[in-house]
Amino acid sequence: MPKLHWEDFTPGTVTVYGPRLVTREEIVAFAAEFDPQPMHLDEAAAGATLLGGLAASGWHSCSLLMRMIADGFVLESASMGAPGVDEVRWLRPLRPGTRVRVRATVLETRASNSRPELGFVRFLFEMLDEQDDVLTALTSPLMLKRRQAGASP
Amino acid sequence: MPKLHWEDFTPGTVTVYGPRLVTREEIVAFAAEFDPQPMHLDEAAAGATLLGGLAASGWHSCSLLMRMIADGFVLESASMGAPGVDEVRWLRPLRPGTRVRVRATVLETRASNSRPELGFVRFLFEMLDEQDDVLTALTSPLMLKRRQAGASP
Repeated sequence: MPKLHWEDFTPGTVTVYGPRLVTREEIVAFAAEFDPQPMHLDEAAAGATLLGGLAASGWHSCSLLMRMIADGFVLESASMGAPGVDEVRWLRPLRPGTRVRVRATVLETRASNSRPELGFVRFLFEMLDEQDDVLTALTSPLMLKRRQAGASP
Repeated sequence: MPKLHWEDFTPGTVTVYGPRLVTREEIVAFAAEFDPQPMHLDEAAAGATLLGGLAASGWHSCSLLMRMIADGFVLESASMGAPGVDEVRWLRPLRPGTRVRVRATVLETRASNSRPELGFVRFLFEMLDEQDDVLTALTSPLMLKRRQAGASP
């Protein structure tokens, strides 16, 4: 199967990946390793915080989102990685037992000026719960190989 | 020891946390779980990518940075978490065997309008290598409890 290249992404396209069940065990394991704040480790302590109960580290949400888009399309694409993330919003807590999906919206595509073999695809990625509420939203430009280096889009 | 509150952070303050040695094993383990792209898993495959060799997932860098600031000051503070991240830049690859530090710069502090018991401290966090080159930079507003709710700063 031919890999997805830069030319295969069209602004306005929306695709949903998942679902994936997020367990209490993985929330606590990630937090213990990377973000050992009480609201990510312990129900009782978490109840006293703004989150009002145990919830995943925001970085765990981002990492789970990455895995879901990797399985969804990135690993089947001529991806060259990303230079960064424009904005991350942790809008609602990710609770144990939530079945999440990721909605990927192509916002914009542009050729690279400095690297004729590459293009950028700017995505909005949203992690959704079962009610389609957005838990985490982030926008990020992915770099992808072009099928035809340097050709006009 | 009294916890750090919002009033204890002053714009312009720079603090460095770490060091922490980042191993090949943890880079590959994180990638296998969350970001299984070739450049984060396998030296030979990574050599053919823009990264030019095995390097940590950007989300791994962010998660390591989180752990270093947690141990550095967040766990000793009256932190209430963060609503998100304004910008993440993955500037240079994080290679196996790098001894990283995190430089935290207080950019700005402001009281919360809607929650008189809280204030925001906007930080620039930079992950540095042994040569003080910046590998990852991100800006994020942390929410902290105020010592005196609703008092003027």
